[in-house]
Amino acid sequence: MKLATLRTGPGATSAGLAVGAEGFMLLPAANVGDLLADPQWRTIVADAQSRDCEKFTPIDRAELAPLLPTAAKVICCGLNYADHILEMGRELPEYPTLFVKYADTLTGAIDPIHVYGSQRVDWEAELAVVVGETLIRADEEEASRAIAGYTVANDVSMRDWQNRTLQWFQGKAFDATTPVGPVMVTADEFPQGHGFDVRGFVNGEVVQSGNTSSLVFSPARLLSYISQFTTLRAGDLVLTGTPGGVGMGMTPPRYLNDGDVLATEIAGIGRLENTIRFCGANSKQV
Amino acid sequence: MKLATLRTGPGATSAGLAVGAEGFMLLPAANVGDLLADPQWRTIVADAQSRDCEKFTPIDRAELAPLLPTAAKVICCGLNYADHILEMGRELPEYPTLFVKYADTLTGAIDPIHVYGSQRVDWEAELAVVVGETLIRADEEEASRAIAGYTVANDVSMRDWQNRTLQWFQGKAFDATTPVGPVMVTADEFPQGHGFDVRGFVNGEVVQSGNTSSLVFSPARLLSYISQFTTLRAGDLVLTGTPGGVGMGMTPPRYLNDGDVLATEIAGIGRLENTIRFCGANSKQV
Repeated sequence: MKLATLRTGPGATSAGLAVGAEGFMLLPAANVGDLLADPQWRTIVADAQSRDCEKFTPIDRAELAPLLPTAAKVICCGLNYADHILEMGRELPEYPTLFVKYADTLTGAIDPIHVYGSQRVDWEAELAVVVGETLIRADEEEASRAIAGYTVANDVSMRDWQNRTLQWFQGKAFDATTPVGPVMVTADEFPQGHGFDVRGFVNGEVVQSGNTSSLVFSPARLLSYISQFTTLRAGDLVLTGTPGGVGMGMTPPRYLNDGDVLATEIAGIGRLENTIRFCGANSKQV
Repeated sequence: MKLATLRTGPGATSAGLAVGAEGFMLLPAANVGDLLADPQWRTIVADAQSRDCEKFTPIDRAELAPLLPTAAKVICCGLNYADHILEMGRELPEYPTLFVKYADTLTGAIDPIHVYGSQRVDWEAELAVVVGETLIRADEEEASRAIAGYTVANDVSMRDWQNRTLQWFQGKAFDATTPVGPVMVTADEFPQGHGFDVRGFVNGEVVQSGNTSSLVFSPARLLSYISQFTTLRAGDLVLTGTPGGVGMGMTPPRYLNDGDVLATEIAGIGRLENTIRFCGANSKQV
């Protein structure tokens, strides 16, 4: 099952169920996070289907909102692809490197990314995991069962801000710069939960390509680890890290420019396509 | 004016206005954050006062909830006391080092702090600033006007987890470990906005003592800086950093033990007093 959050009017969104290639059936929840917060969400979806719901949004007109526009926790893992870590000559980490974004940081699957005040905008194509149940000091098995589904994200990073201090947060949390979507595919469609092909493109050129079978910390392991110190709940989002090929690592480093099209793709889930828009004139330098 | 969030019943809280030393007048908002989110909040408080409100909670029975139990953003600054930075032989930073906590990380002013799975629990006494208005790429003057008030916090840090990786987040965001309160004093009572004496105590012994006149980044500067990349809104909380004297910096390092009483005091605002409770038996090691 594929779920999305759709912009249905000014300031209004609705959770939607993808129906073939035709469009979305609107569900009675403001977004996917609100839907998942109801333990009966599968029944809610089944009910909407059984009522042979008349509300379809043609997919080409669908306004895809960020999948989880009100996510309380958006937690990201850095340095997680073993092949990339080893090729950089580093040792595999014992613990996941974690940092955060806000719901405000997220944006829609085909939204332009407006950049204020950064000259070093970089990409990080990632598999993201949507939490489906409350997790408190959960083991890996419990965490695995609590995965509602998978989606695509790009942890767009302002490297100039990220590297101003030792803590990455300020370069990772620019409002409306991390696209997430277009849909969440429910976990039951991926019984193995690994082996996702993650690819990033700039203006059509492949810049990143990895497979999540190389993750040091699997989705379930990440959720379990995080839940040792903070509660995860339905609708929280965990980004699992990015494979090699980011712009900062190139010689010379390469960053996104105004007008560049950043695409992010995971086979079996979907594709993000976001145009970079520099808004320098509007930004005050601090 | 002193505002607090009070536990008024099972799962229920209310914003309250401190009335002398007697107690609190309950205000029609679930907590201080919800109150501040209404631009007319000063009128709401005045109305409650004019109705000569009968609802007082005797102060000794007051259950102080975290001041902002649903804060959307809790952003912390590290390395901000110039005297401490200079005495450590470091240069003053050009940019603030920022990291985050969650509303889940916060706890009440006199609540015990339950610790699961950390052996290195350290203290960081801090002045915290409550945001009163929406700030988007604001300059310092605008940010200064948007400060609703000041409160006391202790950025209790699990150093073992904090130092597992380069990113501090996982050691800074253990659920219900950062006391905040007991009240927010409105900014109009501190027209200068600096010169706060911040002190930390362990079992009655002074371990930290600093004055915010030594801050490299003032509250207004921090709010302005943060607002360059992410929107701040009424009810968000910014912790301004800690003076010298944390346990990790002692020779040998000193950490909190089960039963220790951590107190945090800012003259003119109030005092936190929290007993450490180790809950190791309940924690699964990861």
